[in-house]
Amino acid sequence: MPATSNSPANAALVGVVWEGGLEDGTLVLIDQVRLPTEIIYLRLRALEPLRQAICDLSVRGAPAISIAAAYGIVLHLVPIVRREHLAKGSEVLEQAFAHACERLVSSRPTAVNLRWAIERMRECFQRHTGQLTALEMCARLLLEAKRIQREDQELCRRIAAHGAALLPGTGGVYTHCNTGALATGGVGTALGCLVEARRLGKDITVFAGETRPLFQGARLTALELIAAQVPVTLCCDSAAASVMARGKIQAVIVGADRICANGDTANKIGTYSLAVLAHHHGIPFYVAAP
Amino acid sequence: MPATSNSPANAALVGVVWEGGLEDGTLVLIDQVRLPTEIIYLRLRALEPLRQAICDLSVRGAPAISIAAAYGIVLHLVPIVRREHLAKGSEVLEQAFAHACERLVSSRPTAVNLRWAIERMRECFQRHTGQLTALEMCARLLLEAKRIQREDQELCRRIAAHGAALLPGTGGVYTHCNTGALATGGVGTALGCLVEARRLGKDITVFAGETRPLFQGARLTALELIAAQVPVTLCCDSAAASVMARGKIQAVIVGADRICANGDTANKIGTYSLAVLAHHHGIPFYVAAP
Repeated sequence: MPATSNSPANAALVGVVWEGGLEDGTLVLIDQVRLPTEIIYLRLRALEPLRQAICDLSVRGAPAISIAAAYGIVLHLVPIVRREHLAKGSEVLEQAFAHACERLVSSRPTAVNLRWAIERMRECFQRHTGQLTALEMCARLLLEAKRIQREDQELCRRIAAHGAALLPGTGGVYTHCNTGALATGGVGTALGCLVEARRLGKDITVFAGETRPLFQGARLTALELIAAQVPVTLCCDSAAASVMARGKIQAVIVGADRICANGDTANKIGTYSLAVLAHHHGIPFYVAAP
Repeated sequence: MPATSNSPANAALVGVVWEGGLEDGTLVLIDQVRLPTEIIYLRLRALEPLRQAICDLSVRGAPAISIAAAYGIVLHLVPIVRREHLAKGSEVLEQAFAHACERLVSSRPTAVNLRWAIERMRECFQRHTGQLTALEMCARLLLEAKRIQREDQELCRRIAAHGAALLPGTGGVYTHCNTGALATGGVGTALGCLVEARRLGKDITVFAGETRPLFQGARLTALELIAAQVPVTLCCDSAAASVMARGKIQAVIVGADRICANGDTANKIGTYSLAVLAHHHGIPFYVAAP
């Protein structure tokens, strides 16, 4: 494993951690761009460094980005409230809130989860405007951000339990891209299922596609599986068919960016290829997502 | 196109060129490791630099290696013959010949074509031992090396003509790895078919898989197609299924390392995947090889 520096309490390969309370809070993220060679924890205390981390892909994965953004609103408001001694329903607070939302949404315009999380924070803000002091409002927003994260953790936990039950008791499972703790608020989606299956005593080995063009499988998934002590073989994406043909794969499990009402799913390039190849080889193909 | 340096007459992206006569001969190869950013011609006049070029993958592609090796035997023998004034049937010549064969075969132990070419040079040597002077023997061996190259060029030309006829009159053709002039003695196999089809006026666009893990498609095939003015789109290998599903691919054409008597073929990792995906999408799949 690479050297760890600047590590927060109890954190190893985690996506998003809020450390401290309301007024001394720090958002801790792993700089995913520097994985797997270095595990560097970014310790963020302001909006713009977080925005930069999203723009630079230092934080990625739809749930992880949205949770980080929810916390980012709090990071932005607290120092303003303390400096300006804002009154209940202050316009300055409203402007600062709107500014934070705008800066965060524009950091990754394609992220649907991010817009959803910001919208949820906005509803919370509007619901309590006029009822709470400015500092109480910040506390309420921090609570909402923590709820968003806890709900994602609970979703991941339940996906992992359901998915683990579907996986074979022994054999190889192929996965693609990165769907672990780095990408979500909890244990991950597809990757959470794999880790949970091992925890339940299933004797599975994972084959992780390297996931061109950005190598999320090689850089992130392989690292997370090694950290979780799950046996993993890294494959170039074009080798998936050959390992299937040799009988080494008993199931394929992937995450999803979105799922349509009719069950169609959108996910990283290469997912459709795996679905066709799994079908050809009579291998079950699972999509693990909220 | 990258800057060209040290270029031999009439050569652009060619695999193997013998320049000059018997006593002033030079073997000219493109250093494929430095493609596509630089076109550097290696000008070799001795055995060991050629062996190093094979070991370093500066020359690659089964036919290109075997042709280069056949010329390499001549490069090794001529200076010895000139220096030692060897007599007809000299043991020194025989030893030098055996040494060259051994050094070349061991440069790429897995290359079947290389062993075959060396074996053919050995048969030529044995057939003429005792009949020719040492210098005449060198001339005969150079003739044999040129024949090996000409036969490969003729094979490529005929493969290109047959393959081009099979390709659609219009549409997209997917290919994998590198099967062009850089890899062979002539215009290439699968890539030769694509270039010939364009020359015949077929309105095809090529989709080239990048070919992980060594990127032969991205580094070499895309470059050769651009040089031949064939429209080309570079894909990561895992995108092949998606471009097929969108109706952009009317045929797949690849080369082969070997073909079994029953028609099974062995080729670069990812070829089987393409065959399954083409089958699923009802797209014809062609293997172009001698």
